[in-house]
Order: sequence, then structure tokens, then C-alpha cells
Amino acid sequence: MPTYFLTLQYDGSRYNGWQKQGNTPNTIQEKLETLLTRLYGLPVEASGSGRTDAGVHALGQTVSFRVPKEADRYDCPQLVALLNQYLPEDIRALSCVQKDGRFHARLLAKSKIYEYRIDTGAAANVFTRRYALHVPQPLDLDAMNEAARLLCGTHDFKSFCDNKRMKKSTVRTIFHIELVQEENLLRLRFCGNGFLYHMVRILTGTLLEVGLRQRDPSSIPDILDAQDRAAAGPAAPAHGLFLVQVSY
Amino acid sequence: MPTYFLTLQYDGSRYNGWQKQGNTPNTIQEKLETLLTRLYGLPVEASGSGRTDAGVHALGQTVSFRVPKEADRYDCPQLVALLNQYLPEDIRALSCVQKDGRFHARLLAKSKIYEYRIDTGAAANVFTRRYALHVPQPLDLDAMNEAARLLCGTHDFKSFCDNKRMKKSTVRTIFHIELVQEENLLRLRFCGNGFLYHMVRILTGTLLEVGLRQRDPSSIPDILDAQDRAAAGPAAPAHGLFLVQVSY
Repeated sequence: MPTYFLTLQYDGSRYNGWQKQGNTPNTIQEKLETLLTRLYGLPVEASGSGRTDAGVHALGQTVSFRVPKEADRYDCPQLVALLNQYLPEDIRALSCVQKDGRFHARLLAKSKIYEYRIDTGAAANVFTRRYALHVPQPLDLDAMNEAARLLCGTHDFKSFCDNKRMKKSTVRTIFHIELVQEENLLRLRFCGNGFLYHMVRILTGTLLEVGLRQRDPSSIPDILDAQDRAAAGPAAPAHGLFLVQVSY
Repeated sequence: MPTYFLTLQYDGSRYNGWQKQGNTPNTIQEKLETLLTRLYGLPVEASGSGRTDAGVHALGQTVSFRVPKEADRYDCPQLVALLNQYLPEDIRALSCVQKDGRFHARLLAKSKIYEYRIDTGAAANVFTRRYALHVPQPLDLDAMNEAARLLCGTHDFKSFCDNKRMKKSTVRTIFHIELVQEENLLRLRFCGNGFLYHMVRILTGTLLEVGLRQRDPSSIPDILDAQDRAAAGPAAPAHGLFLVQVSY
């Protein structure tokens, strides 16, 4: 069947996350599927690379969907134009390419980059108030970098997962965590082969505790060893988090 | 009388501009004066460096106000903290300093920098949709720079003023106009000794016509000579405009 691969950008502020779940209204997946179903005149299911939580944003969420050959009536530029015409203005289609029928945006994702943004100014920047967590206290970036280094690699990240009933493996590989401070914006970039439920937000919450000197970087191996959610820091709020890129 | 000098940042999206005007509700000046009046227990009048239109943003609006000596009960750090505690989250006080009693934020302003932001991406960026004008068509930056050069200097900018009943001089000096393109964001920076009503937005609308090749840069001197609003381009929408800095 003709299979399409979309890259979407969205401002997650007013959505209940990516994924349609039972009767949860107002998800990005629901907005997209409703529109695709209308455009093709038959039910279309859209698979995202993964969920994003309520309030989390995307610079490059990837999505695949299939259309029966007889309903396949738009080429890629037409699809992008139609999506941007009818989607709400806080969801944009950045690109569309056709893939072979075995392609799947979630199952074939090889790595993802997430970014957590922190506004380190004395007063909260009004223009990033929905897109960055305001932390006016001084942060010890050296300690945060040291903790970030200890988090990289292949580990069981059970302590950094908010799904208590997770039955599958909680082992993941973080390729790197990069801290970039530009003026009053501190960006924590996480690149890994996959992330557990709330994992990036808990990593960020834990790194912030280190930055605020409430926790020593040397405690990171103990948190990983504990395999206990209570050993790690709190999940940082959703509104600072961006899904940046998914690679295949 | 003790005189204070504030620098404010605001997201103008949901306000009717800076200036309180008759019964126009929901202006930034009104929010600030109402709070200052409550904090000091007597009427306080706040003078901004100039108006910003409905929907226009500020990275550094400057404001002065006086307080009778007997009511002068806060130092500068206390004032900043109180303002940020009680102002809406889309208005922030960045700094406060005490000035001598002759200081006035509008009357003594020597120069101002405004910035107009244009999103040049194919699809409108969802994160700048309230803070940049989306222009997906290709723009001829060389032609825009040439037109910008011809606009600089001391001229009668009557053609770039939307106030038809302007009785005072419409002569202003633009020190420079800088075009900065970074990825999909084009920023037009205007530095001048003062700007007329809608002047920056009309300058931008005219420069955009040049960029879209609807108008030749060589027509700029004719527009200035005409001293007729109809000779210039349309005013660009308010939501792309920022008051960046006021110098004294």
C-alpha cells in the first residue's frame, strides 16, 4: 500500500499529547487522523515515532500512514499543502516523502533527539514562558556535565521511568547529553536509541538537582543501580521539552 | 520627588498596546499603573518611552514614574520583585534604577531600536506564529538592503506615517537598518532618533514589497519626496514587531 512519511512541528501547549487514548480529546494524533480520514474519504491511522506527553512540543515528530491504492489521490507536495491548510495553526507539516510499504515511523526509529529548555534569566522571559522552564537560581554546569557524562551509555533506566507496570526491557542507550548555554537559555540535548515514559523529564529533573547542588554528580551510578523510581529526581514540567529529531 | 526608571519586557499579543487611551481597556500602561497605585497607596502615573501598538511586543520598553517622598517605601530590588509577583506573566520587569527628579522616559529618549521579525520558512513556524510575520515567498535581500540604505539618514518621513493629523514635524533620522537572516528567521533592525505612528511597520511593508520585487529600490527617494502616505507600502502586521531598546 502507498505509505507516507511526514515530519510535523507542533506547539504542544493546548494538546493532551500526541497519542489518542480512549476518550481523551484533543490530541495531535486525533487532529491529524481526523483530517487524513476526511481527505481520503476512508479511515486512516497515523503512527507517530512515539508519544509526546501533554504539553510537550515537537520540532520534528515523524509519522507514517498507509492509504489503499484506490484512495491514493495526492502527491507529497499536495499533501503538505492540504495539511497546512486544514490543520490548526499550532501544528505544521514540514515535509512528506513516500516510503516503501514496510516503513513504520515507530518500529523503525533508530535514535531520537530531545531537548529540554531552561530559562536561566533573573525574570522569566515572557516569550519563552510556554517553551522553557524558568530556573533563576545559579546552576553548576560543571557538576551537571559530570552527571550527564555518567548517564551516557547503555544502562537499565528503570529509576528514570514513570511507568510502574513497564513489562518490557527498561535498558536504553544514551549516546550523548549536551549542555548548551546561550545567553539566558540553557538547552539540555539528549540523544539516545529510545526513551522510557517521562525519562527525559526525569533525567532533566535529576540534572537540575545536581545543578542546584542538592545532589552530587557521583550519586548517578547509585540511582541507576537502585532501579527504583524514588532514587531519581522529579520529572521536570512538560512545557520545556521538545522532540527535536527522529533518525532511521 | 523620588523618580524610578524601569525596563519592561512584554508579549503584546493580548493587549491593546502600551498606552491607556480613554476607555480602551487592557493596556500595559493600565496594568502597571494600577499595580503601582495599589503598591504605593496613591495614584501613580507611568510614562513609557513611547506607545507600542496593539499586538506589538517589547524586549526593553522603558518607563519612568515619580512617587511622593512620604510614600516612597520600596528600594529598586523590592520593586522589581513586587512587580514580577503581581504583574501578569506576559509582562516582566527586567530592571529598576533610581534617577534624579528631572528624568523622563519619553522626553529624554535619544534613540530607539525596533526589530521586525519575518519567518521565511516554507511552513509557518508554530513557535513564532505570534512573534513573526510568515512570508514563504523568496525575498531579494540585496534589493531590500539597497532600499534600506536609501531610507537611512535624516528625511521627512510623512509618507511613512499613519497619523494624518500629525501637526508636529515628521522629520526623523534613521541611523541604520540592518537585515539579519539566520536560518528561517529574517530580522529587520531599525535604529533611529524616533519613529512616527506606524512608521516601522510601514517601512517594513515597503521593504517587503521590494523584497518580493513588487517595487524597485530606486523608488525609495520618490516615496520620501511624495510626502504622501499612499506612496509607501502597507503597514506590516503588528505581531512581528518588537521594541528592543531605548537609549538616553
